[in-house]
Amino acid sequence: MSMDMTFLGTGSAYPSPHRGASALVLRTDGECWLFDCGEGTQTQLMKSQLRAGRITKVFISHLHGDHLFGLPGLLCTVSLNTNPDVHQSLKCVDIYGPRGLRKFLRVTLGLTGSQLLFPYGVHELEPTPDQCPEEGQLSLEMVEESSPPHPQEQPGRTIPLDNSTDSYLLFQDNKFVVKAFRLYHRIPSFGFCIQEHDRPGKLKTELLKELGVKPGPVYGRLKAGESVVLENGRLLLPSEVLEANIPGRKICVLGDCSSVLGVGACRLCNGADVLVHEATLGNEHQEKAVEHGHSTPQMAAAVARACCAQRLVLYHFSQRYKPSSLQKEGDEDDVSELKNQAEQALLDSGVEVTLAEDFMTIPIPLRKPPAIKV
Amino acid sequence: MSMDMTFLGTGSAYPSPHRGASALVLRTDGECWLFDCGEGTQTQLMKSQLRAGRITKVFISHLHGDHLFGLPGLLCTVSLNTNPDVHQSLKCVDIYGPRGLRKFLRVTLGLTGSQLLFPYGVHELEPTPDQCPEEGQLSLEMVEESSPPHPQEQPGRTIPLDNSTDSYLLFQDNKFVVKAFRLYHRIPSFGFCIQEHDRPGKLKTELLKELGVKPGPVYGRLKAGESVVLENGRLLLPSEVLEANIPGRKICVLGDCSSVLGVGACRLCNGADVLVHEATLGNEHQEKAVEHGHSTPQMAAAVARACCAQRLVLYHFSQRYKPSSLQKEGDEDDVSELKNQAEQALLDSGVEVTLAEDFMTIPIPLRKPPAIKV
Ligand SMILES: [Zn+2]
Ligand SMILES: [Zn+2]
Ligand SMILES: [Zn+2]
Ligand SMILES: [Zn+2]
Repeated sequence: MSMDMTFLGTGSAYPSPHRGASALVLRTDGECWLFDCGEGTQTQLMKSQLRAGRITKVFISHLHGDHLFGLPGLLCTVSLNTNPDVHQSLKCVDIYGPRGLRKFLRVTLGLTGSQLLFPYGVHELEPTPDQCPEEGQLSLEMVEESSPPHPQEQPGRTIPLDNSTDSYLLFQDNKFVVKAFRLYHRIPSFGFCIQEHDRPGKLKTELLKELGVKPGPVYGRLKAGESVVLENGRLLLPSEVLEANIPGRKICVLGDCSSVLGVGACRLCNGADVLVHEATLGNEHQEKAVEHGHSTPQMAAAVARACCAQRLVLYHFSQRYKPSSLQKEGDEDDVSELKNQAEQALLDSGVEVTLAEDFMTIPIPLRKPPAIKV
Repeated sequence: MSMDMTFLGTGSAYPSPHRGASALVLRTDGECWLFDCGEGTQTQLMKSQLRAGRITKVFISHLHGDHLFGLPGLLCTVSLNTNPDVHQSLKCVDIYGPRGLRKFLRVTLGLTGSQLLFPYGVHELEPTPDQCPEEGQLSLEMVEESSPPHPQEQPGRTIPLDNSTDSYLLFQDNKFVVKAFRLYHRIPSFGFCIQEHDRPGKLKTELLKELGVKPGPVYGRLKAGESVVLENGRLLLPSEVLEANIPGRKICVLGDCSSVLGVGACRLCNGADVLVHEATLGNEHQEKAVEHGHSTPQMAAAVARACCAQRLVLYHFSQRYKPSSLQKEGDEDDVSELKNQAEQALLDSGVEVTLAEDFMTIPIPLRKPPAIKV
């Protein structure tokens, strides 16, 4: 199954003509999952190769405007481009994010008379009080849902922290388990971990031939993990004829943060194929970064190292950093310096560092089966 | 006083890479007044020659997302670019629009923890039930303001229709009177009329010399409309030594509509220097346009003719119409056809027709004093 990730906005604080506000799409088998949706995301989508109508799930890391203000408009535009007669996308769009998100959508869609042709559900993560300074916590008065639900709003879940794992279980299906974990920021912020299930290894076809098993439905049953009784009465276990499992991929996308919180993050992100982490300002601005709840490349690198990630992708750059393609000789702030800083902090770790740019697509190849021990 | 108008978005329904969502700026003496603020307006502003920090007033014609979804982000970004130590813009930003707008800002700014360095006030226009079909009216439940006000929210007015004039008085100062009037659309929609005060004509300096009045403070007093007693005891009235008043300019910006409502609109817009009117779809799609509460060029032209406007500017084009610069031979929908249709409907009327494009600036020259009758 092919899988890739496209960045639609890599800027922090607000969208600019050079960098969109935060948004990225994880694509698997034609389904698109959107992570954050800053203002202008729908326009960035139109400029990309992706199709907004393919978005089936949305994950909002935190409620800051540069991650959220594009969501009502995006939903409206997806709906405008939906043909109710022929369209598949009348499936419910599941939206995951912090407490308060459901009300945000009710009020923005409701007051604007926005009609949607598809149902949506909002599943809210309950933050813990230690995720942000006290002034960043929403008052009950602010969160209270007095507005009527949108006609297309489906009942959504409220997801509390699972204390035993220090994480939030968002959902699991036959391909993925998706969880969230806590970050520390000015307001409650979350990271998301998409864990693909392991898949069975290849059938040892040479061995099967030797055993006299011919290609056919039996192969499929073995591959699916069923035991089979051969014509000669022998019980054949899948483990006898399957190579080692191919481990599932793991993609971790962290929202704004100056640190991860608790043990959940590093447990979940351990060994990630791709770890997407913000790096708003260079190491030399660490004090300012932390004051605003943000990270430097060095801080992002420390997380990647602690998690033994294979690849660290930096994004959410201050708008002072122009994209490399627009960088001019003598410009004070050079985004490539952020990469250097992360690489410096990851020397000898084997972690590959990538700077995200708007419209960059990163393929996430299948993992290789574990090497056979000889 | 110089005055011009810049279109930041001329597309309907949603922003696209070719046309931004609705927004335009009227600039007078360095102050900027923003009319509508679709998603992406802040990015369009950055691409333009205008400065977001100069925005002192905002007018929202109606609450559809393509006219509103950019407002919370715009306010946040203006604030980020405000230096509280030096900045003039700690003046209150006055925001005018339909009932529901105050809650929209409370909830979007409140839930996202958006801090603003300047105060703002929302002044709500009370719609009348006949401005839209029943399903377009906001329920009391939806409008109810249970959310706490933003720390920077100043008390705002609720402005009812003045039945005697069929209009809403938004404000008047020493330069302008600004009023709103009712339109018919899918939800309550308004037009805005900006009427500059007449200014006194030139002093007849030849005559003053003959009367023995020397240049000095007396000239200023006469120009300001004061009578003056000369040294010889003669009472000099300003009317004796001033040429005819220079009439103030009038700019009218109409929100989405399939028609104006009542007598207010044409009364207020009578003789407008510039009348900005939507033309979402060509004449051949009139049925569809009206069904969606929109106008064709012919319908816009009829309003301009009824108001004796000097210039009709069309905007809010369906995204099917590409800007002329991107028009290719054989493209089905040609925006210049919309201009033809309006011109056709305005033959012999003397009304000049202009198609707005993103980033187009239209100067609004001073009116000439009335011709002297000989
Ligand atoms: Zn951010
Ligand atoms: Zn943030
Ligand atoms: Zn519109
Ligand atoms: Zn509208």
